[in-house]
Amino acid sequence: MATIKDVAKLSGVSVATVSRVINKSPKASKASIESVTKAMRELGYRPNANARALVSQSTNTVGVVVGDVSDPFFGVMLKAVDKVARQHNKHMLIGNGFHEAKTEREAIELLINSRCESLIIHSKGLSNQELIDFADEVPGMVVINRYIPQIANRCIALDNHKGSYLATEYLIKHGHTRIGYISSTYDIEDTQQRRAGYIDALVANGIEVDENFIEYGTPDEEGGEKAMTNLLSKNLDMTAIATYNDYMAAGCLSIMDENGIASPQDVSVIGFDDGIIAKYLSPKLTTVRYPINIMAEQAAQLSVQLAKGEKSNEYPRMFVPTLVRRRSVLAK
Amino acid sequence: MATIKDVAKLSGVSVATVSRVINKSPKASKASIESVTKAMRELGYRPNANARALVSQSTNTVGVVVGDVSDPFFGVMLKAVDKVARQHNKHMLIGNGFHEAKTEREAIELLINSRCESLIIHSKGLSNQELIDFADEVPGMVVINRYIPQIANRCIALDNHKGSYLATEYLIKHGHTRIGYISSTYDIEDTQQRRAGYIDALVANGIEVDENFIEYGTPDEEGGEKAMTNLLSKNLDMTAIATYNDYMAAGCLSIMDENGIASPQDVSVIGFDDGIIAKYLSPKLTTVRYPINIMAEQAAQLSVQLAKGEKSNEYPRMFVPTLVRRRSVLAK
Repeated sequence: MATIKDVAKLSGVSVATVSRVINKSPKASKASIESVTKAMRELGYRPNANARALVSQSTNTVGVVVGDVSDPFFGVMLKAVDKVARQHNKHMLIGNGFHEAKTEREAIELLINSRCESLIIHSKGLSNQELIDFADEVPGMVVINRYIPQIANRCIALDNHKGSYLATEYLIKHGHTRIGYISSTYDIEDTQQRRAGYIDALVANGIEVDENFIEYGTPDEEGGEKAMTNLLSKNLDMTAIATYNDYMAAGCLSIMDENGIASPQDVSVIGFDDGIIAKYLSPKLTTVRYPINIMAEQAAQLSVQLAKGEKSNEYPRMFVPTLVRRRSVLAK
Repeated sequence: MATIKDVAKLSGVSVATVSRVINKSPKASKASIESVTKAMRELGYRPNANARALVSQSTNTVGVVVGDVSDPFFGVMLKAVDKVARQHNKHMLIGNGFHEAKTEREAIELLINSRCESLIIHSKGLSNQELIDFADEVPGMVVINRYIPQIANRCIALDNHKGSYLATEYLIKHGHTRIGYISSTYDIEDTQQRRAGYIDALVANGIEVDENFIEYGTPDEEGGEKAMTNLLSKNLDMTAIATYNDYMAAGCLSIMDENGIASPQDVSVIGFDDGIIAKYLSPKLTTVRYPINIMAEQAAQLSVQLAKGEKSNEYPRMFVPTLVRRRSVLAK
């Protein structure tokens, strides 16, 4: 492979001159730009992004840690980050964290070692303190979908409690009082906050909270099926179900279908996320929208500003889900 | 930020020794490993991945160009590549090509300039010749979802024609003869091959081909709605529809629903891809599976082998879709 020395030799200039041309220095003369460009083309020489990064001690790279790149939720998040990165002529490096402390830590270390100046971290496995330490080390690091009080101005979070509260309240407004809740078995703050939102909406409306009405499963379709099977077997005379997310709602609907229980006629169901599947379910799923695209865009903007040492604008940092009315909720 | 010189000074060894410790050279003594590691920790020094990459003129990075990272199809592809990359202690750099020549070219150039030794390219916009030129330049480059005869051993492709042929034949075996086809307006080889598969299955079974039975739309739900609306308005007495992909099938089903046409009782519908939405549609969609996860894994393995200059195993390079039977096709 041709080196910068070969280019200098062929074009009859010094290595320093070649370097000036590559780095588009205003000091490079028109003649040297021409001869160096010609020599580079002849030799098939490509200026090395690593070499340039080394000089500036940074890269043009925005690092992102997501839970799982194959989950469409994170796909939407990555697309939004990529859009902002391109606007700043940066590219994007991605790591999967799989919601586990060890994998998340490795992914973040790798991005830092690759000198990513901007980092957008979706972490559910690491402790607050560990994330604070990383944030201290990397000025351009932003945490998404998590609120850490000590670095509140570096967090773009969703009010999970409010989302679940809204969903449950919407069922109550439609006359439902016997409302089940399908929760996640994953021990992360989203689980606790969404479950608390359901409970607080019941309490605020004078409905007694009964643990029997809450069942748990993995936050996917199978988990929703399992939880709904357990709820049904308790014969609780429920008329509505709130759920941890759309996938669990899909599992819930599928078990109802198998058992001849019609939705929304017999039992109303409400989801959480408004992910890709919501509008394809039957009935089309009423849910609350997680505005991950807007949140990811703002996280990326904030991260790029912080990396440049700029003061950040006063973005709204705590986002609120909104209701998306479709066909799965009916007045009692 | 601390430099390698600071580490050398604090640990009382030479920069060369620090370098040996960082690069895990067998020549580094136990004492120097200890003192350097301690100094690095005290100074918060991180060995620079760019510097290491520069020395070896390569990075530990697998570059991937996808159509659109937010499309779950590409999410599945990226997850499979990432899995293989991790097995080889590499990480993954991603670019979006959006199926346009200019964007694809920029994404590939960026990955090459970042010294990705392995490249997995999903390109629908660039010419065969341009991809051949890139492949000449990068020994570890593999093309996915496209077959280019001159670099056949670097291509992992799907037999689109056979997938569409299978789908249409399945409808014919169920007694259908008046079969519509919903095609894509995107001028890429997938479009032509899938449309040809539909036509050839009709011909092979002695069914007359009538262009009136083919309508076009963008390869998404809206496109499927538009194409189905056009088909219905022609009053063709169809009993079955084959489609370019699952999203167009979803749009087709949604228009049928609005017009009081039941599926599969009145009209059978078959998709293509077996993407995330297929099993959530109503009726659950019968379709052909695009084995993108297996294809992406093999592309990544091949790419890593080629980058190391190894001979590749004889992988199957042309994959074949298989039927996934669900509820949207009924015998006439």
